[in-house]
Amino acid sequence: MVNIVQNKAMRVLLVILFLFIGNLTQSFIAAQDRYVLVIHGGAGTILRSQSTPEQEKRYKESLEQALSAGQAILQKGGKALDAVEAAVRVLEDNPLFNAGKGAVFTNQGRNELDAAIMDGQTLAAGAVAGVTTIRNPITAARAVMEKSEHVMLSGVGAELFAKERGVEIVDPSYFYTPQRWRSLERARQLDSLELLKKMQEPVAMDDILARRKEKYGTVGAVALDKHGNLAAATSTGGMTNKKWGRIGDAPIIGAGTYANNSSAAISCTGWGEYFIRLVMAKSICDQVEYGGKTLEQAANQLVMQKLPALGGDGGLIAVDKDGNIAMPFCTEGMYRGYIRQDSPNGPIRKEVALFKE
Amino acid sequence: MVNIVQNKAMRVLLVILFLFIGNLTQSFIAAQDRYVLVIHGGAGTILRSQSTPEQEKRYKESLEQALSAGQAILQKGGKALDAVEAAVRVLEDNPLFNAGKGAVFTNQGRNELDAAIMDGQTLAAGAVAGVTTIRNPITAARAVMEKSEHVMLSGVGAELFAKERGVEIVDPSYFYTPQRWRSLERARQLDSLELLKKMQEPVAMDDILARRKEKYGTVGAVALDKHGNLAAATSTGGMTNKKWGRIGDAPIIGAGTYANNSSAAISCTGWGEYFIRLVMAKSICDQVEYGGKTLEQAANQLVMQKLPALGGDGGLIAVDKDGNIAMPFCTEGMYRGYIRQDSPNGPIRKEVALFKE
Repeated sequence: MVNIVQNKAMRVLLVILFLFIGNLTQSFIAAQDRYVLVIHGGAGTILRSQSTPEQEKRYKESLEQALSAGQAILQKGGKALDAVEAAVRVLEDNPLFNAGKGAVFTNQGRNELDAAIMDGQTLAAGAVAGVTTIRNPITAARAVMEKSEHVMLSGVGAELFAKERGVEIVDPSYFYTPQRWRSLERARQLDSLELLKKMQEPVAMDDILARRKEKYGTVGAVALDKHGNLAAATSTGGMTNKKWGRIGDAPIIGAGTYANNSSAAISCTGWGEYFIRLVMAKSICDQVEYGGKTLEQAANQLVMQKLPALGGDGGLIAVDKDGNIAMPFCTEGMYRGYIRQDSPNGPIRKEVALFKE
Repeated sequence: MVNIVQNKAMRVLLVILFLFIGNLTQSFIAAQDRYVLVIHGGAGTILRSQSTPEQEKRYKESLEQALSAGQAILQKGGKALDAVEAAVRVLEDNPLFNAGKGAVFTNQGRNELDAAIMDGQTLAAGAVAGVTTIRNPITAARAVMEKSEHVMLSGVGAELFAKERGVEIVDPSYFYTPQRWRSLERARQLDSLELLKKMQEPVAMDDILARRKEKYGTVGAVALDKHGNLAAATSTGGMTNKKWGRIGDAPIIGAGTYANNSSAAISCTGWGEYFIRLVMAKSICDQVEYGGKTLEQAANQLVMQKLPALGGDGGLIAVDKDGNIAMPFCTEGMYRGYIRQDSPNGPIRKEVALFKE
C-alpha cells in the first residue's frame, strides 16, 4: 500500500487544503464577530429651513444615545432583538420623537401608540395597535411575540395583556407634551383651512404642506448581531389629528417592519398608507432574497421610485444579512444614524444625520 | 418610383402582416373577454368524519350562490372589485360561514369582525378591524378604500366612519347564532381542559384538536375581470374565544389579502398568526412577479411547505393576471369554488368542493 502522506505531491496538496480551511474558518469568525445597528427617528417631519443649530444638536445627541444603548448589547455579543428594543425604548422615552413620550395627539386629544418587533432568526413577531397606557409600546410588542400565541393585539385588550405580563403601565397624561398639543391645535386649524379651500376661498399652500409634514413621524431600529441574526423594531404615535381608529404601517408586519435572516431587517417611516399598499418592508426583503437586487438597489427602487409614483413619501432603514446598510428617503430629511464594527478589533464607525447630504 | 404594392413579393408580405395583426387582435380580445372568480369559505374548520351529506349539500349550494352573485357582474363586463365584494357579501350574510352573520364569538361573548379589500389595478386598499355593528364588513372596507385617505380603520372609530358613509349598521345581536355560541361554550370548556392538562390530568387530545379546528374560519374571493383587472377580498369573525383585541391576517394587506395586476390576487384562510409572519399573500405575488415561479408553484411552496414548516396551517385561493387558478390547503378541507369563462362564447366552467380530492 502506498503511504499517501509520504507522497510529496500529496503533502503539498494537504498543506494547501489546510490553508484553505483555515482561511474559511477565519472568514467565518470575522463574519460572526461583526455587528451593525441602524436607527431612525422619523422622516418628513423636519424642514431644514425651520431648524436651528441648537435643535439639530439636540436631535443628534438623542440619536447617539439610542445608538449607544443598542451598541452596548451588540458589542458584548448580545442579541439583535435586545439591541433594537433597547434603542427604540430610548427614542420612545425621548419627547423629541413621535413615539412613546412625545407621541402626537389624535383628533380626540388622545395618544394612541402602535409598535412592532420581529426576530429574523425565527420569524417570530409581535405588535400592538392603539394602546394608550403602555409607557414603552415596543416592550409590549415583544411581550405579545414571546408571551402570547398571537402576533397583533389592539386597544384595551392589548393593554390588559401587557399589564398581566408585567409591562410598565402609565397614566395617559404621561404622554402629554406641550409641543404635540400645539401641533394638534394647528392641525385642527388647518383642517378648517382645507374646508375653506374646498369652499373656493384662497388659502396658503405652505400651510397645507406644513400640516402634511407634521402628520407623521416614527422611530425604529434594525440590527445584525455577532451571531448573524437580524431583528427590526418600529414604534409610533401615528398621525397628528388622526381619526376613526386609523392603524398605520408601523404595527403591520410586512409593511412598516420586517426581518428575515435570509434577507434583511427593515423599519419604515412615512406616509403609512402607501407603505401598507406596497407592503414595503417585505417587498424589499423579497427583492433581496430572490429578485436579484442588492439591498441598496431594492430599497432605492421602492422608496425613491415606487413610493413617490403612487403618491406617497417617507423613508426607511435597512441592514442585510451581510451587514450592508441602506437608509433611503424621498422627504427633505430623516433623523437617522448607524454604528458598526466589522471585525473584533476593527474600528467602530458611527454616523448620525438629519438632512440630505 | 417603384410601386411597392404592385410588387408581388411585397404583396405576399403585406398579406402575412395583416394575418399576423389579425391574430394578435383576436388573442387580445380573447384575453380581455375572459373572466375568473374564485371563492373560499374557510379552511381547517371542517372534518370529513363529522359532516353529513345534507350538510355538505348546504355548503355547496351556499358556495354556488356566492359564485353566481360575482359571476353576474363579471359576465356583463363588470369590475373584479365589484364581483369580489358581491361574492363576499353573500358569504357574510350566510350563517354557515365565520364572517358577518355567523361570525364566531370572542372570549367576552362579542362578535368582532375584520375585513379587507384590494384593487389590483391601482393598489388601492381598505380594511376594518374589530367592528361589531357593521352588517357587511367587506363593504365598510371598500368605503375605507374609496372614501377615506386611510387603508385600515379599527374599532368604534371604524364603525363611526362606516355609519357616516352610509354603510348598513345593525345591532350587535344580529350576529348571534346558536351554533357559534355553543362553539364558544365548548372552547371555554376546552380552555379549562387545557388547564387540567397542564395540571397533569389526562385529557382527550381529540378534544384539543377539535378545539383548534374550531378556532378559525374566513371567507374570501379573488377575481380577474374582462378588462384584465384583478381584485381580492377577505372577511372573518376571527378565532372563537379570542382575547385581547387580537387582530388576525384577514384585514392585514399583504398577509391575508393582496392584489396586483402585475402578478395575482390572493385571499387566505387559516391560522392567521402564521400568515402574518410569512406575509403570505404578498410573498406569493412577489414569487410570481420576479421569483420565476408559476402561481401554482409559488402558492404550493408557501402553503404546503413554508406554512407547515413554521407550525401553521390553512389554505388560500389565488388567480393570476393570466387567469390561472390555485387553491392549495394543508388542512383536511377548505370550502372553495370557482367559475370561469375563457372566451366570449366558450363554455362556463364551475366547480365547488369541500375536501381533498
